[in-house]
Amino acid sequence: MELGDYIAAVPDFPVPGVAFKDITPLLAEPEAFRRSVDGLLELCRDWPVDRIAAFDARGFLWGAPMAYLRGVPLVPVRKTGRLPRATVGESYQGEYAPETVEIHDDAVTAGDSVLLVDDVIATGGAMRAGVRLVERLGGTVVGCVSVVRLTGLGAAEQLSGYRVASLREYRAPRG
Amino acid sequence: MELGDYIAAVPDFPVPGVAFKDITPLLAEPEAFRRSVDGLLELCRDWPVDRIAAFDARGFLWGAPMAYLRGVPLVPVRKTGRLPRATVGESYQGEYAPETVEIHDDAVTAGDSVLLVDDVIATGGAMRAGVRLVERLGGTVVGCVSVVRLTGLGAAEQLSGYRVASLREYRAPRG
Repeated sequence: MELGDYIAAVPDFPVPGVAFKDITPLLAEPEAFRRSVDGLLELCRDWPVDRIAAFDARGFLWGAPMAYLRGVPLVPVRKTGRLPRATVGESYQGEYAPETVEIHDDAVTAGDSVLLVDDVIATGGAMRAGVRLVERLGGTVVGCVSVVRLTGLGAAEQLSGYRVASLREYRAPRG
Repeated sequence: MELGDYIAAVPDFPVPGVAFKDITPLLAEPEAFRRSVDGLLELCRDWPVDRIAAFDARGFLWGAPMAYLRGVPLVPVRKTGRLPRATVGESYQGEYAPETVEIHDDAVTAGDSVLLVDDVIATGGAMRAGVRLVERLGGTVVGCVSVVRLTGLGAAEQLSGYRVASLREYRAPRG
């Protein structure tokens, strides 16, 4: 089984010129999904991880089973306005539009080692905003993991100095 | 350990008069989160489940580990415009605003027994829309499960005739 067989490219979604990486085929095949979760856990097996922070919404699909299996707290990194208590927020230029992400201001404790999880790293903007949120609360980012990473969209620069590991890498079809 | 200790009521969120059930404390305590996932799996242990359909975004937090552990395909039920391929959609009156949810039109196959999973069942509108989506594609809904269920907001009527099971039940503070 090859994970890449379960990641489909959908041309011109959500905007013209973008080849969207559709991870729903991976969710539809239990063995492939299991391997992707286990594979992400394997990537960070030797890293100290006090908390897993996962991105709304698709990052939840991997972050939640990872937190369950590793037995660490799960921090939801949510789009603006979704968290009910006091939050800290960071804005960034997303691949398609400006975005803001938030976490509860008690979601990370000073000194925590935090692993960031998302389905796809493209521009790295969301991940970079997640890094800033963790660091604003005194946490340390031990690494950023994703199922898919697109190269050539700026993530290497955004996340320079941080450990980044992904199960599959693709070169973005646009410059 | 009592799961209810990890479910906080946040008054007047997202609109005045609503006591929002905040499930993030449950995510922050690994043993409580594990018990909630295991508890949902236990509720449906004897039901035939070919697929688990989980709601964007908080439903993913429980649906994903459940699908991993039970070894069945996961169907993301998403807010409108998020799924990249051909979809079917259903609109409903949410607790706070009108909403539309969608699934890929190949996400359920005729004859499939589908379990619907969300964090909270309040009015039952989202769950009812999920039921319609599954049935439009020829699937059978074997049940609807949630961590929290609020009574007195209409869910009993919306989901009449379907199995509904939740880990915790609260009476909604408004009529």
